Amino acid sequence: MKKYVLGIDIGGTNTVCGLVDQKGNIIAEGACGTSEFEHPDDLVDAVVFKLDEMRQEMKKGDVVAGIGIGAPNGNYYTGSIEFAPNLKWKGKVPLAKMFMDKLNIPVFLTNDANAAALGEMVFGGAKGMRDFIVITIGTGLGSGIVVNGQLVLGSDGFAGELGHAIVVPDGRLCSCGRKGCLEAYVSARGLTRTVLDLLKNSKTKSLLRQIPENELTSYDVFEAVEQGDRIAVDAFEFTGRMLGTKLADAIAVTSPEAIFLFGGVCKAGDYVIKPTKYHMEKSLLPIFQNKVKLLKSELLDKNAAVLGSAAMVWNELLKKTDK
Amino acid sequence: MKKYVLGIDIGGTNTVCGLVDQKGNIIAEGACGTSEFEHPDDLVDAVVFKLDEMRQEMKKGDVVAGIGIGAPNGNYYTGSIEFAPNLKWKGKVPLAKMFMDKLNIPVFLTNDANAAALGEMVFGGAKGMRDFIVITIGTGLGSGIVVNGQLVLGSDGFAGELGHAIVVPDGRLCSCGRKGCLEAYVSARGLTRTVLDLLKNSKTKSLLRQIPENELTSYDVFEAVEQGDRIAVDAFEFTGRMLGTKLADAIAVTSPEAIFLFGGVCKAGDYVIKPTKYHMEKSLLPIFQNKVKLLKSELLDKNAAVLGSAAMVWNELLKKTDK
Repeated sequence: MKKYVLGIDIGGTNTVCGLVDQKGNIIAEGACGTSEFEHPDDLVDAVVFKLDEMRQEMKKGDVVAGIGIGAPNGNYYTGSIEFAPNLKWKGKVPLAKMFMDKLNIPVFLTNDANAAALGEMVFGGAKGMRDFIVITIGTGLGSGIVVNGQLVLGSDGFAGELGHAIVVPDGRLCSCGRKGCLEAYVSARGLTRTVLDLLKNSKTKSLLRQIPENELTSYDVFEAVEQGDRIAVDAFEFTGRMLGTKLADAIAVTSPEAIFLFGGVCKAGDYVIKPTKYHMEKSLLPIFQNKVKLLKSELLDKNAAVLGSAAMVWNELLKKTDK
Repeated sequence: MKKYVLGIDIGGTNTVCGLVDQKGNIIAEGACGTSEFEHPDDLVDAVVFKLDEMRQEMKKGDVVAGIGIGAPNGNYYTGSIEFAPNLKWKGKVPLAKMFMDKLNIPVFLTNDANAAALGEMVFGGAKGMRDFIVITIGTGLGSGIVVNGQLVLGSDGFAGELGHAIVVPDGRLCSCGRKGCLEAYVSARGLTRTVLDLLKNSKTKSLLRQIPENELTSYDVFEAVEQGDRIAVDAFEFTGRMLGTKLADAIAVTSPEAIFLFGGVCKAGDYVIKPTKYHMEKSLLPIFQNKVKLLKSELLDKNAAVLGSAAMVWNELLKKTDK
């Protein structure tokens, strides 16, 4: 008898899921829309249907031991998605309970950045580390913080919102309605805003001038930087400065062994990592300098979101075995 | 047979110690200089001598079950004071081992802010809380952060340096050599600097104009604010703004149930707490607003440093009983 867990990643547009063994092998995968379901019950039914299909890949006697869900605004303590701005479903959605009622196995839910941190800890580069931070940079900026080998959830389950720490007092308007949040600078959206600012305030030649303002994406900036475009290089330098100075703050608080960068923006590799590292070191107290590793997530090219959600379940199941 | 622990607080000038029972009663106290001892061995001898005196207050059969030491730059993992700028002894001083060699009982050492946090958890207002922060504001600004009921020590034992997170990019020069650290604004020294800036940049009448610049202390500012002095009120408002905005950042990271303010500057009570609370709430993400209590330490009028050091030992001894 072999045990698997079902990892589910709920995104604004799509939901993906997979059956994952204890070593992080995904033996079957499935996907469906998220936004097409008016009611979360319908998503639960769709995923349960996918699970039945995926069970074909299991052998007789194998079991699904639990479900892990990573979701925007997912709260570990309540097992609910709470007031997620990017989902159709309003208010609190008790998704863990809804799956539990259908399948009668343990279900754990957290936000996507926390799932990414657990994924890194169980299957990625943070194996064996007790103190580290994962920064996920996509449309927004999320963070999953591990202290003493445990995820920092806080008193209400909402800890880890480094994206909404202030990096420039009275700076750029953030999607959260406040000003100067890290996410307003370090995210796909922040990167394109930086490019537009740089284009407006300089006469430097750039490939990016050919793209209409409202069509510019972070991928255009990646392409331009690889061709040595000055504006793109400067945009990454600025992004790295914002991220690096704020990481120095986070290091002063939790003194991690390593910080992992994860998500779309990190695919720019050294273009973003080098300036981040430079400004991070420059901003650190001497006692923290040249100690903290800044690394790319080891799950970047894998189905990381599903692995992260699955990792949460393995982590919980192993905790129980330890006792 | 009753158990006591010896709590020791090592300051730049004085070292105080006390025998503390499990309920936080101090049955005997002692003190000696710190700076008069050229070598830490001599301090250890002096404290051991004090301990022998204090044992007179114990009954026959009572035991001293352990020693807790709070010290500047104290590192829990190594049991050493490491490169403390305010102490005569240079480099690393393995103080825990030195006491252990003399007395053959368990010895724990950490920095003063961490000891304050444990004191609050075991004997003060944070009893029963699993996520909280203690901010100690004296000559400098220290912080002790508790997550999941455990002190955040980080990978190297130096976590919790909120005083050296940046609050004003390229701002005031800090004693650490960098610019814009929270401690450069929120500390006894920061407060008097703020007053001097305000006096220089305005023509507002103030009692504080009568005091020569190099003689001004935070106590003068406390006295002036109680008489409604405008400059003093503005100085506390500014201090509260710096602290409040930075606490909002810290809340986004660890989502604590409460934040306790501790140390000399907090004796100004509402003059510092009200503006801090106002700016903290104003800077918080909506999901964190009106949730986090901002409180004065409940140990403010007690021998808090000794209680904090003792609390660390009780906390460790109880951990062992739990297993």
